[in-house]
Amino acid sequence: MDLPERLLKVVRQFGRLPGVGEKTALRQSLIMTKWNKEDLVNFAEAVKGLAELNHCKKCGMFCDDKLCKICMDHNRVSSKTICVVESVTDYLAIERSGNFRGKFHILFGVLNPLMGIGPDELKLDYLFSRIQDEEVEELILAVNPSVEGDATCAYIKQMLPETISVDRIGFGIPMGGSLEYVDSLTITKALENRRHL
Amino acid sequence: MDLPERLLKVVRQFGRLPGVGEKTALRQSLIMTKWNKEDLVNFAEAVKGLAELNHCKKCGMFCDDKLCKICMDHNRVSSKTICVVESVTDYLAIERSGNFRGKFHILFGVLNPLMGIGPDELKLDYLFSRIQDEEVEELILAVNPSVEGDATCAYIKQMLPETISVDRIGFGIPMGGSLEYVDSLTITKALENRRHL
Repeated sequence: MDLPERLLKVVRQFGRLPGVGEKTALRQSLIMTKWNKEDLVNFAEAVKGLAELNHCKKCGMFCDDKLCKICMDHNRVSSKTICVVESVTDYLAIERSGNFRGKFHILFGVLNPLMGIGPDELKLDYLFSRIQDEEVEELILAVNPSVEGDATCAYIKQMLPETISVDRIGFGIPMGGSLEYVDSLTITKALENRRHL
Repeated sequence: MDLPERLLKVVRQFGRLPGVGEKTALRQSLIMTKWNKEDLVNFAEAVKGLAELNHCKKCGMFCDDKLCKICMDHNRVSSKTICVVESVTDYLAIERSGNFRGKFHILFGVLNPLMGIGPDELKLDYLFSRIQDEEVEELILAVNPSVEGDATCAYIKQMLPETISVDRIGFGIPMGGSLEYVDSLTITKALENRRHL
């Protein structure tokens, strides 16, 4: 379509975002043409600000300064439990559930030799030294179920002394799920993970 | 959720866009945290550029300079037909259909006395002077069907001399539509607009 270059630039930029097709990008860009200059500048500055986003020196979560809010929370810092996750989104999912009051550690990936991701790339040494420094007693591996995820969990378990309790989150039928629609692998896992009543 | 302020700012800005809820805004913002600084600056500059977007001096469409591409297209400028639309999105919808080769005129609204929108707010005088200056012979009113749209069409028709042909686009059953699911008002319009075969 013969749109002016200034508008097309914005459409192209929005089109780079996940879940935004050409139509949505155009719709969003056209709405923004109605914004005043101040609003546009605010939007632009907010986006630029992402480049200055820091990672928490301890857990790896995004933060404004050196430490994230959880790693500065007195109640949680004294916890002897670390929950290990693959990504920021997984961290947020667990935090949203509201039932975990310990600390986090983000791996930013899982072991994947084919892609050249080994223990050094995930900075696993740093996790192990954190466990020592902070006298952690319990590790909850909230790593997603996949061949790479399983390998990562096995590696972490193997590298730690027996004195530290290492758990992996449970796999099975999701709440509100129906056996009829759940895949066979999940059902197999659910049978393995059955609990005596 | 305890997210850093720099990230929250972006989430809030995305949340202002149509069709973007809190979850989508967070997802899009998190994806952008993986972009490098250059990409973020490009995005921000594109958004800021919208403030410098001009309107075509003739038809009102967005353009980079003084005139839009259609108003500079020799074949179309010589056309004696103007299609009158309410908004940029309606303009684009007609242009997308690919079957109109005349010129456009965007009203940026319809007459709505209750909201204080009269002929002066829509700059209808300018449409009438354009019709004279460009020796327009035919006007197609592609205004949406609504009380205000009907009134706008009636007003335009009334203000023009008999020598100028004024049509309104047809209303009826949409292509691929089914009588079973179409509302009564549309069926009434479709019956009124029946064509002898």
